[in-house]
Amino acid sequence: MNNSHIIFGGQGFIGQNLALSLLDLGHKVLSIDKDLWSLPYSKDFLQHNNSFFSLRADIVDDEDKINDFIHSIDFDIANSTVWHLAANSDIAAGSENANIDLRDTFLTTTNVINFCSHHNIRTICFASSSAVYGSWAKDNHAYKETDMTKPISNYGAMKLASEAILSSAAEYLFDRVEIFRFPNVVGNPATHGVIRDLIIKLRRDSICLEVLGDGQQTKPYLHVSDLIDAMCFLAFHESNEPYRVCNIGSDNSNVSVKQIAELVVKEIAPNAKIFFGSSPGGWIGDVPKVFFDNSKIQNFGWRAKLNGLDAVHKTILDLKDILK
Amino acid sequence: MNNSHIIFGGQGFIGQNLALSLLDLGHKVLSIDKDLWSLPYSKDFLQHNNSFFSLRADIVDDEDKINDFIHSIDFDIANSTVWHLAANSDIAAGSENANIDLRDTFLTTTNVINFCSHHNIRTICFASSSAVYGSWAKDNHAYKETDMTKPISNYGAMKLASEAILSSAAEYLFDRVEIFRFPNVVGNPATHGVIRDLIIKLRRDSICLEVLGDGQQTKPYLHVSDLIDAMCFLAFHESNEPYRVCNIGSDNSNVSVKQIAELVVKEIAPNAKIFFGSSPGGWIGDVPKVFFDNSKIQNFGWRAKLNGLDAVHKTILDLKDILK
Repeated sequence: MNNSHIIFGGQGFIGQNLALSLLDLGHKVLSIDKDLWSLPYSKDFLQHNNSFFSLRADIVDDEDKINDFIHSIDFDIANSTVWHLAANSDIAAGSENANIDLRDTFLTTTNVINFCSHHNIRTICFASSSAVYGSWAKDNHAYKETDMTKPISNYGAMKLASEAILSSAAEYLFDRVEIFRFPNVVGNPATHGVIRDLIIKLRRDSICLEVLGDGQQTKPYLHVSDLIDAMCFLAFHESNEPYRVCNIGSDNSNVSVKQIAELVVKEIAPNAKIFFGSSPGGWIGDVPKVFFDNSKIQNFGWRAKLNGLDAVHKTILDLKDILK
Repeated sequence: MNNSHIIFGGQGFIGQNLALSLLDLGHKVLSIDKDLWSLPYSKDFLQHNNSFFSLRADIVDDEDKINDFIHSIDFDIANSTVWHLAANSDIAAGSENANIDLRDTFLTTTNVINFCSHHNIRTICFASSSAVYGSWAKDNHAYKETDMTKPISNYGAMKLASEAILSSAAEYLFDRVEIFRFPNVVGNPATHGVIRDLIIKLRRDSICLEVLGDGQQTKPYLHVSDLIDAMCFLAFHESNEPYRVCNIGSDNSNVSVKQIAELVVKEIAPNAKIFFGSSPGGWIGDVPKVFFDNSKIQNFGWRAKLNGLDAVHKTILDLKDILK
């Protein structure tokens, strides 16, 4: 197991949680991100000040800057694992302008691969998405890793394009490629998503809560703590697949938007009335009903600690005090 | 059915054959290509000089040039069908340098989509490839359109990435997207491929013929005349799938490299001795054994006129006189 880790997109919601977990395991972490997010965990990161490095740089434009920084720190780059989480996180915005996901979700991947080639890095973990499947399934079919992919958003398309180029790079560059297909991930510090949106709406208007879509959208939800646990579980155990694709989710993890809205109202403004829209999807590119087959990761022996509804509930309680 | 057609990659092997077929049907054709290939059919094209337009331009760099040209000719752009065949055609070269397929096989697609959006074009046909499947199948499994995709070459990866972004664009831009997954296509004017390579080798040395790989590579072959026939069949008939993926091939179309080498020797230099290599694949990114399930297109009622071996044989005879 490598104990040096480079996280592209390390300042994002999942990147920060991953960095802290790796630091807690005693590993070294270099976080590279084009944005400077607030670091709510800054005290926790400071505890690890000899093993945590952070650089503000864009892998698409700033390869020289990144290389200069790496040479200036005490970091075993050739024996490191790259975690590529850098991507556009606003799927709806990417549907309005295809260049956003082309650049931030796909060209980040080709540039991360070039970076790995330059530094002879042989292990990469990639944050993909259930959005690669699209919405072709009927009758509550649960998508599994061997199913066909037919994305309906530019975000899903550029996640699939990233998987494709990593699949090819596994032939000539990497010893090990781990593709994680994420469900909806919730937790703190959430930067977007339905729970955050609904809490903010209720803070502004505690009488009426307007919800995008008819509330029947149902998706698999996973708490970020379980997601990080699964990613490390997959990355740190032996694998007999040099290129492995794995859905990450929990049993019984589907939650409807209606359930989420009701829980948010209960915890934030119990007297509010909920108004639903009429369309089955919340926005263009939204997949209204997704069911995820998690038998592959479960067959490896991993289980989530929280089911979908508990993950949503915990997130509401976490965000309740933060989103004032 | 639209009777104006824009062919990106119109000067290539398949583009030229497609252009001639469309012209023979009485349609208007605008051929756009970054390269100027020899036009062996130039006399045939000249017969259609009022309905054939040709521009040397690169869709990645020259959008303004293309738009200026279109405004200068008598062409019904908004009601045209776009045929996107522009791609790197040298898969092996793309495995040495990932930027070749990124630019020529994938960014051509994103730029063609932008072009269609700009001109309000609602119908696109895309030349994809059996290379999107990769080589995961065991026991002579024949890949079908609903199978998972796991490319092992940058070419296959960027064809899959192109499919992905077209799948997404079908949601908000196109009324109709036809994805054709090509087998190995043979015929005239061949610009690359095993038949051409072997004939050229035998012209240089009519005693010894050295073959890349062990000769056991077996792939589906289709003659370009059948390919064009299938593409027009799919594009010109009604479809109930706004985004449709279809393998194109014939029954019993698999031919081994050994069979091809023996046929080439028989026709070109009957006394030559054949020497095979030892590796199962011919080059990095080569998929040694591909079987193609063609039941989808056959269920629509289409059949190839030539099986794989006849297609190879006809191509050898066609190229015999040309490659002196």
